[in-house]
Amino acid sequence: MHPAETLILPSVSESPGPRFVLMHTSHAGNVGAAARAIKVMGFSELVLVQPRFPDVLAMEETVAMAVGAADVLTRARIVGTLSEALDGITHAVATAMTPRHFGPPTHAPRPYFAELAPRGERVALVFGGERFGLGNDEVWRCHACVSIPTPAGYGSLNLAQSVQLLAYEWRQALGSFEVVPRAPVARVADMAMVDGALAHWREVLVQIGFLDPAAPKKLMPRMQQLLNRAAPTEEEIHILRGIARAVQRAAGKPEDG
Amino acid sequence: MHPAETLILPSVSESPGPRFVLMHTSHAGNVGAAARAIKVMGFSELVLVQPRFPDVLAMEETVAMAVGAADVLTRARIVGTLSEALDGITHAVATAMTPRHFGPPTHAPRPYFAELAPRGERVALVFGGERFGLGNDEVWRCHACVSIPTPAGYGSLNLAQSVQLLAYEWRQALGSFEVVPRAPVARVADMAMVDGALAHWREVLVQIGFLDPAAPKKLMPRMQQLLNRAAPTEEEIHILRGIARAVQRAAGKPEDG
Repeated sequence: MHPAETLILPSVSESPGPRFVLMHTSHAGNVGAAARAIKVMGFSELVLVQPRFPDVLAMEETVAMAVGAADVLTRARIVGTLSEALDGITHAVATAMTPRHFGPPTHAPRPYFAELAPRGERVALVFGGERFGLGNDEVWRCHACVSIPTPAGYGSLNLAQSVQLLAYEWRQALGSFEVVPRAPVARVADMAMVDGALAHWREVLVQIGFLDPAAPKKLMPRMQQLLNRAAPTEEEIHILRGIARAVQRAAGKPEDG
Repeated sequence: MHPAETLILPSVSESPGPRFVLMHTSHAGNVGAAARAIKVMGFSELVLVQPRFPDVLAMEETVAMAVGAADVLTRARIVGTLSEALDGITHAVATAMTPRHFGPPTHAPRPYFAELAPRGERVALVFGGERFGLGNDEVWRCHACVSIPTPAGYGSLNLAQSVQLLAYEWRQALGSFEVVPRAPVARVADMAMVDGALAHWREVLVQIGFLDPAAPKKLMPRMQQLLNRAAPTEEEIHILRGIARAVQRAAGKPEDG
């Protein structure tokens, strides 16, 4: 037994994202869909171990499913063994629906990636083939298992879907991307504006005989609640008051506002 | 304008999960893959609005990609308009990569679903077709947009992948499923066991001439650190001590332990 050297790990900022290792893939479409799934989450490293078709990276179905992720396919490597696929990796994570005896501990992806991603290790995510998943000997090579939580009776994710979910979770663990808000951001009307519109509409409803001031029931409080839930923008308040004025004009009544 | 009635919403426990509405799908494989993606997260309600192929639910490619989710296909509805698809829904969420002017506010799925799922509304998740996504008039029907966070230059998710991610996020928002841990759970050795194994190995290493007690350098502290990082189980400690004894036997030395 030889003493281990101190672990030297790259910092998070240098981390190139996880390597996606697909074992024994049999469907070309899945390889293309996996490439797209990786790229759409901002990652790029794809390694295939003994795919069924040696020319899978150039097959028509692969390229068709990759849609714009051809660069991931171009840079992908095909190797003969899992060991070659794990070259340079410090932490290998197996994806497995079924825990194995003596296998590494099994985690849900979200909490595990939240803990693992900041550590800056060189991580590989290892996926089994469509038919049989990962073999025990492949799982035993890995430091951890992740299992996507599914119902007890039906746990079978498509391979490319698994790649997509784990790529997404890794990206979320890194802090995600910005989601572009609606532009321009609308300003929510303040309560004075809402009250003004309600008063205006109350006047209109009386003018057109819909609201009897002697027996108003709960009409205006209900409209108030409706508007409160709607949280209207300033522009929407202007529209509501414009409609009120138009009703007054059409009914031959004096206009407010 | 008529006052709105008080909203009466089903409780969370009665909530049947979101309805998945696919508009104008053109690829049969995506319909099958979507059915599987929905089922694997424990949901079941699929509605297609004007799919390219009216018999898409029975097509060979659809059934092949559904893999065990045939029941979702059997119960799926095909309708002519988005309005029909939203029958009974109280909160419609559009999936759109590009925010629309005057459209509903755009959110990342995770925080939005975390807020929405406990409210117990009847939710529809509305997905556009493969070619053009959702039209503006379809987005405007919805209460909110969700956008899966992607890199600025490459935001194109496959339709079935989008369905998978949002089904997964909804399930996570509901509290996920249990992930089955490795069985049986191994007991981590306590420090006394680790120290005993280290002392045993120190003796062996001296006996076989690997460790010079007069110049031990940092060999044992390094082995201690290695074992600390490994967090060995009790069974693994027994194995390490078994090996130590075997070395002593093989070297003709008295056995410890």
